[in-house]
Amino acid sequence: MIEKSFLQEGERLDDLQVGGLRIIQNPSWFCFGIDAVLLSHFSYIRDKDSVVEFGTGTGVISLLIAGKTKVKSIKAFEIQENVAEMAKRSVALNALEDRIEVIQDDLKNVSHYLKKSSVDVVVCNPPYMSPHGLKNSQNEKAISRHEIHCTIEDVIVSARNVLKVGGALYLVHRPQRLVDIVWALRMNDLEPKEIRMVQPKAHQKPNIMLIKAVRGAKSELKFLDPLIVYEENGDYTAEIYEIYGQEGIDRFGERKER
Amino acid sequence: MIEKSFLQEGERLDDLQVGGLRIIQNPSWFCFGIDAVLLSHFSYIRDKDSVVEFGTGTGVISLLIAGKTKVKSIKAFEIQENVAEMAKRSVALNALEDRIEVIQDDLKNVSHYLKKSSVDVVVCNPPYMSPHGLKNSQNEKAISRHEIHCTIEDVIVSARNVLKVGGALYLVHRPQRLVDIVWALRMNDLEPKEIRMVQPKAHQKPNIMLIKAVRGAKSELKFLDPLIVYEENGDYTAEIYEIYGQEGIDRFGERKER
Repeated sequence: MIEKSFLQEGERLDDLQVGGLRIIQNPSWFCFGIDAVLLSHFSYIRDKDSVVEFGTGTGVISLLIAGKTKVKSIKAFEIQENVAEMAKRSVALNALEDRIEVIQDDLKNVSHYLKKSSVDVVVCNPPYMSPHGLKNSQNEKAISRHEIHCTIEDVIVSARNVLKVGGALYLVHRPQRLVDIVWALRMNDLEPKEIRMVQPKAHQKPNIMLIKAVRGAKSELKFLDPLIVYEENGDYTAEIYEIYGQEGIDRFGERKER
Repeated sequence: MIEKSFLQEGERLDDLQVGGLRIIQNPSWFCFGIDAVLLSHFSYIRDKDSVVEFGTGTGVISLLIAGKTKVKSIKAFEIQENVAEMAKRSVALNALEDRIEVIQDDLKNVSHYLKKSSVDVVVCNPPYMSPHGLKNSQNEKAISRHEIHCTIEDVIVSARNVLKVGGALYLVHRPQRLVDIVWALRMNDLEPKEIRMVQPKAHQKPNIMLIKAVRGAKSELKFLDPLIVYEENGDYTAEIYEIYGQEGIDRFGERKER
């Protein structure tokens, strides 16, 4: 099989359930989770938009955006050389090199690659956790999960530097960081316009937060209906089925890598 | 009946379902709603605390706090002379003059009555709506509902001026003002520590927001389980029954004055 040549030791190939796309993942590093899927679903992207992703990791969000839109230009930043190289192979495997460019660099250098006020949409599923007390801060999993190479402020400042007025930043993060994120967004002229909380069950507090901010927008937040993952009986809700698809549920639904 | 002497034309007497307390209301001005009940339930108040309420209206929140605690000093500000006078009569009716002082003045003058850093808890159910486009801005209902005499920033700055370090401000407001409120709180060294959203039903977006901020606290938000008002079949949830009590549900539950 031709795909075999794309895979290296320890890697596996997964079907993304969108337009026949596949993705290479290395389970010992980091595999994408529900956060990435929900963020790509939450992001409103028009076919003519120029899109930037910060911290693409496996490339999953950029691949899903390429699958669900006709966007021609997605620039996906990834600081880790080996991870970026794997994402590049996933892009090549799907013959998407003309639409997705994986850039192996620090997202704080985004202005080396893109002009100010040139981008319509930035998406980012950043590291959530503080690096404080972390023992091994140099492996792939730690860098993807902890604020070692970038903080949420770095993400927001870098997004502000390239977004057009009226352009949107879509983030996924933890609800306990809501105040810090809202504060940093408004400090950087990115007005939070939509928040959607993701709750494990209808009566439980949210554990994931989706947020949309728009550069230069006026103050008015829409707080959206909660996205509920499980019914009381433990089944996935109809909305999660709709987002993942039945096969996606079967393949990815039970993994809780993040 | 002795109560008759407390009532003026157009007023009615309602049972608060807490410690036998009763309240005078004038339905043509403004009657308290679920927001006031939920805020007094959300507020954590110790018996030794000194408490201030801004914009007490009928006095409902101060009366409920007096009913559920042994707090000795509650100062309740109300700018409208006739409304403050009615609240004073409710305090007298319940023989609570030694614990609740209704102060008829602008909350922005709070420092004329209280020293800086002297108060443990401030509670406020402020006007929610912009006065923009308002036709009649001088009647009691308009002043209670619209930011005519005070904005949310006024409430926050005034709370900051009297709260001790470690003292708490409890607010109820609309979720669409979350960003403005969080911003104004942190600007004034009041760190948002807890947010609880109130949703009509489990799958519906919140329409009421409860927020606790603490002066001088470090950044870390707890986003709490949603408070859900109705079951899918339209019955009140067990939590609402617990907060209101059965009789409270019967008497107040169906009113939707706010």
